[in-house]
Amino acid sequence: MSNTFGRALKLSIFGQSHGPAIGMSLEGLPAGFRPNMEALQSFLDRRAPGRGEHSTARREADVPEFVSGLLDGVTCGAALCALIRNSDARSEDYVNLQELPRPSHADYPAWVKYGPFYDGRGGGKFSGRLTAPLCIAGGLCLQFLEERGIRIGARILRIGKAENPRFDPLSPDIPSVYRTPTEEMYEEIALAKNNEDSVGGIVECAATGLPTGLGEPMFDGMENRLAQLLFAIPGIKGVDFGSGFDCASMVGSRHNDQYYVNQDGKIQTRSNHAGGILGGLTTSMPLILRVAVKPTASIGREQETVSYRGQPTTLRIRGRHDPCIVPRVVPCVEACVAMGILDALLEARI
Amino acid sequence: MSNTFGRALKLSIFGQSHGPAIGMSLEGLPAGFRPNMEALQSFLDRRAPGRGEHSTARREADVPEFVSGLLDGVTCGAALCALIRNSDARSEDYVNLQELPRPSHADYPAWVKYGPFYDGRGGGKFSGRLTAPLCIAGGLCLQFLEERGIRIGARILRIGKAENPRFDPLSPDIPSVYRTPTEEMYEEIALAKNNEDSVGGIVECAATGLPTGLGEPMFDGMENRLAQLLFAIPGIKGVDFGSGFDCASMVGSRHNDQYYVNQDGKIQTRSNHAGGILGGLTTSMPLILRVAVKPTASIGREQETVSYRGQPTTLRIRGRHDPCIVPRVVPCVEACVAMGILDALLEARI
Amino acid sequence: MSNTFGRALKLSIFGQSHGPAIGMSLEGLPAGFRPNMEALQSFLDRRAPGRGEHSTARREADVPEFVSGLLDGVTCGAALCALIRNSDARSEDYVNLQELPRPSHADYPAWVKYGPFYDGRGGGKFSGRLTAPLCIAGGLCLQFLEERGIRIGARILRIGKAENPRFDPLSPDIPSVYRTPTEEMYEEIALAKNNEDSVGGIVECAATGLPTGLGEPMFDGMENRLAQLLFAIPGIKGVDFGSGFDCASMVGSRHNDQYYVNQDGKIQTRSNHAGGILGGLTTSMPLILRVAVKPTASIGREQETVSYRGQPTTLRIRGRHDPCIVPRVVPCVEACVAMGILDALLEARI
Amino acid sequence: MSNTFGRALKLSIFGQSHGPAIGMSLEGLPAGFRPNMEALQSFLDRRAPGRGEHSTARREADVPEFVSGLLDGVTCGAALCALIRNSDARSEDYVNLQELPRPSHADYPAWVKYGPFYDGRGGGKFSGRLTAPLCIAGGLCLQFLEERGIRIGARILRIGKAENPRFDPLSPDIPSVYRTPTEEMYEEIALAKNNEDSVGGIVECAATGLPTGLGEPMFDGMENRLAQLLFAIPGIKGVDFGSGFDCASMVGSRHNDQYYVNQDGKIQTRSNHAGGILGGLTTSMPLILRVAVKPTASIGREQETVSYRGQPTTLRIRGRHDPCIVPRVVPCVEACVAMGILDALLEARI
Repeated sequence: MSNTFGRALKLSIFGQSHGPAIGMSLEGLPAGFRPNMEALQSFLDRRAPGRGEHSTARREADVPEFVSGLLDGVTCGAALCALIRNSDARSEDYVNLQELPRPSHADYPAWVKYGPFYDGRGGGKFSGRLTAPLCIAGGLCLQFLEERGIRIGARILRIGKAENPRFDPLSPDIPSVYRTPTEEMYEEIALAKNNEDSVGGIVECAATGLPTGLGEPMFDGMENRLAQLLFAIPGIKGVDFGSGFDCASMVGSRHNDQYYVNQDGKIQTRSNHAGGILGGLTTSMPLILRVAVKPTASIGREQETVSYRGQPTTLRIRGRHDPCIVPRVVPCVEACVAMGILDALLEARI
Repeated sequence: MSNTFGRALKLSIFGQSHGPAIGMSLEGLPAGFRPNMEALQSFLDRRAPGRGEHSTARREADVPEFVSGLLDGVTCGAALCALIRNSDARSEDYVNLQELPRPSHADYPAWVKYGPFYDGRGGGKFSGRLTAPLCIAGGLCLQFLEERGIRIGARILRIGKAENPRFDPLSPDIPSVYRTPTEEMYEEIALAKNNEDSVGGIVECAATGLPTGLGEPMFDGMENRLAQLLFAIPGIKGVDFGSGFDCASMVGSRHNDQYYVNQDGKIQTRSNHAGGILGGLTTSMPLILRVAVKPTASIGREQETVSYRGQPTTLRIRGRHDPCIVPRVVPCVEACVAMGILDALLEARI
Repeated sequence: MSNTFGRALKLSIFGQSHGPAIGMSLEGLPAGFRPNMEALQSFLDRRAPGRGEHSTARREADVPEFVSGLLDGVTCGAALCALIRNSDARSEDYVNLQELPRPSHADYPAWVKYGPFYDGRGGGKFSGRLTAPLCIAGGLCLQFLEERGIRIGARILRIGKAENPRFDPLSPDIPSVYRTPTEEMYEEIALAKNNEDSVGGIVECAATGLPTGLGEPMFDGMENRLAQLLFAIPGIKGVDFGSGFDCASMVGSRHNDQYYVNQDGKIQTRSNHAGGILGGLTTSMPLILRVAVKPTASIGREQETVSYRGQPTTLRIRGRHDPCIVPRVVPCVEACVAMGILDALLEARI
Repeated sequence: MSNTFGRALKLSIFGQSHGPAIGMSLEGLPAGFRPNMEALQSFLDRRAPGRGEHSTARREADVPEFVSGLLDGVTCGAALCALIRNSDARSEDYVNLQELPRPSHADYPAWVKYGPFYDGRGGGKFSGRLTAPLCIAGGLCLQFLEERGIRIGARILRIGKAENPRFDPLSPDIPSVYRTPTEEMYEEIALAKNNEDSVGGIVECAATGLPTGLGEPMFDGMENRLAQLLFAIPGIKGVDFGSGFDCASMVGSRHNDQYYVNQDGKIQTRSNHAGGILGGLTTSMPLILRVAVKPTASIGREQETVSYRGQPTTLRIRGRHDPCIVPRVVPCVEACVAMGILDALLEARI
């Protein structure tokens, strides 16, 4: 497995859902940066379970303890390591699941890969809980970038049938007014919950203030790098940039972003179908991307499954599960985009 | 920049569109593998320019010369290096472009990144021509996997308004009958060409015969790894897996793939919305993914641009350009998927 | 900086000497391995300060807490993370040093590199204390390898003027009788201590039971990989393999290791000047290497130094320092060799 | 295997001794650098066979062809790829060796690793010939560094019994007067040759003009990184820095390098036992290292060996072999040191 990411940044994530702790080690943040720990906690709270009325009933304080990398609250050039203790795991909820792979969870391939030693409690190392350390790392990167004029914000585009407008690709609002679900979206979630079901959605993210030329094509361009990060968020099944999948039915004369000089004398494009990336490099126009979030795999309804010994059976998943993870994916996407941009920025030595 | 990919495989790609040669060096193919050079050439011919009636008029023999890695036609454990000479480059077509960034090409950010030394002739190192060495590497991997029962094939899902059906996610046809454009698609391309315009599309790819448990989550899972590779193909703006972006409006009870035991006693799923990947790991169901291909950026129509000195102007791109690169993207996607799977397979030591 | 090592193994080390904790995250140990925690503690105790009569007076329990990677004491395929709390740091010893770079410590270049934010207390992240997490990772690898018949042991070859015989390169004794200092060596250490001085030495290490062909030349051969690891131990200034620097005055007819078939029908060499490595690959003969350990940089004697503002002055280092770290380097070398071998073994898929 | 090196630089080397060509691909040299091709050729000529009177009789033009990465002779930001054709390989010399592993060559472990498909002709990919592309890459780095005031030069310290003085570690002469063998050394080589034997030696290298703080400890410090590179040169069995193995018998009060301010107001050390590296970081004092070179494994004398089928026999190696490779190792060491320094320099963003 590889819980390690980065070229100039180096991130390692560790932990299982029901182990003693989860956490991360991050190298590469320059010395002399003072993280705002309150702002970081607010950011983590956006991801944490048990916040919304329809969210999972599991509550974790999710307060990270930094055990290295800081001196008097300022980065000192050493690797930053932060831990979150797992205080509220109820493994008994999962006892009967140990033998039965849950549909659309990682259980079955993980059991084949790691054998009977695999810790599948609460999804083990595949749990969405591992996005907490991802958000610690990404939250630090967000703050670091913001001090340098780079702003990153995500919004909810869709939950089930409920839709919001897309970002204005020339001038996205950050933070977005659609950072949290609309009433209509809450209704979609409530409906799913009442049906012992779940629902998917789409999250869009924008970044502004980027210099031109970030990214290292062919394989470490901005799209490659961000997609590699975003698919680390459990439940993400698609990533597209700029016009994305819509470009398929467009003609070039409409899709191409033509150049002009704006009133400040800066070279800009009239449209931004490229989503701020050409040839894997940032163009300095806003970077725009979307991710598709599948419906939560854990649902209360009876489902067909098979024991590892090949016996057909059914199961009902109890536990405490979100009927919709889309709102919690929003900060995770911001975290990943921040890490990808900072990694490229440090590598580019701008 | 980074023209290097891989964990167990190690691929380096080199070359510019109008330099003396392009090529690749590939490490990691086990010793004892005899590539079928005729089959490789046929594969490369599918990508090569100048094949279809509406394709670019540039013709390159694109016959790779292997300068290392083989002994009597069999891999010997040394790095494989293959070159293709650039014989038919007409740099004069580009002379007037050196000063003017073409809309939706990498010209502008590349010029900012590399400065006046950047070789922008024919798109330089950002040219689609660099997919030729990508296809050499991927074509070798395809053959290697095929000997081990893993089959990979792509099809055209959409060109402009013309659509084909998707793969049957439980039993995809490989090679697909939709590997080449339909009549209706050729008409879309002809229309674009006649309008001095271009058109985009979608390519879908399937892989069968995979073992369960390939991939190294969080950051090197199959989706992360394949997306990292696929975004190396110029013009790709989106990648999704299984139900992809459609999952956003689905409920869990419909999206989840329930387990059963098939008549051969093998654990299978009744549907395959996961596209053969759960938690970043292969499930042994067919792997299914799609890529969005933007309309060719080079079009004959007059476009607005700005000189690097900030002078607004217009340009018309002459050269010899494909009005639609979708058919040529098909083998490139197969190549990337083959490399990603083989990389994971070698890493997993199955 | 890079506290990250490995190809198939992935190790991250974090912590500063006087921060809240030090630790490591290790990926790549296969699932199903049960570490012997008592044996690991004994191994760590060999490295820990405050054990020998002449050793540093700083005492740390150095009992690692594993916060991830285990289920019921067995590896489960998730990253292993272990922490050691820093309980006995006396930063006040270092207060007057913050402004003065200690000769032959990393203080000066670290201060230039990281600026005034650098945490230099106790040597910060350059402290020998960081070899504790190195030994956790290496100690686990040692156990894993031992179960597969690969044994690794180091000995002290020299401390100051006191010398021990080298390993028999055809049949090294593991564990060696010279794993701890001889009487004569203790006298060298005591002499240094009485003089408020310190003394260097040489450690030799051997590994047996290796398969043939481990290592990935040119740059990831066994020598490259082991040297990269060994130079992570503070104070190491040289690494050589087999005949090492002695080969310089030898002729080929004496140096070459000629092949024969032993009584078990196995291909062996009559001598082992290669130290078990040819062309970067293991030969299956015992792997033999040596490292040079410089005298401890911290000495009580007055030394000339310069404040960061460029003011000449002198300093005396009080603190609690080992007059000779050679005995504590012995397990660190074993740890590094174990990690390098396991990394190559997992990569080679033998 | 891994013929790939680098963090900010990315080097891939390919080729076998008797294949069509050998070469390298190098990424990371900034755009806008104009290599001096004549100076590069002179540098390669120092490594090339067939120059000295006692050197191997094999003669290769060794003129690299650059097929990518340059525009009008200036780096353009694309990967540099250069090839050397193998024009003068006499594989017939090796026919009888295919079945018999040569003592102290990589033949035996390579045959076990790669099986019967291994290309062992002329040592295959383990041949010293692969140092030609290493010297192309390193030669370019040397020139790049020299333009920035960093000078690198190696000298011969020992061949057999003949010794030269070491560099003055405070002020090394670059290029050194001992860059080529002395009369006494030529006599050692001639003696070996007349005896159908070979002889080893030691090469020392110095680098000046380095900034303070280069290197990324623990695992990518300057010693780790340079050692990883240097052990890629065939026949190197040891690497040490500064006082190296001599530090073992020294006391700290003698070994420590005390700080003072020189007449230019610069912080310097009175001695340089550290060899310009503390804690893995450059100190700005001259970087000093040494490598041990084993006697050429190919000798004319009869040697004992065993066929791969286990049959004891003897062999005599004819071919055209250097009785001493030390003079040719000199530029190879300079090449490796240049690559390691430039890699660290680009990574450090100084």
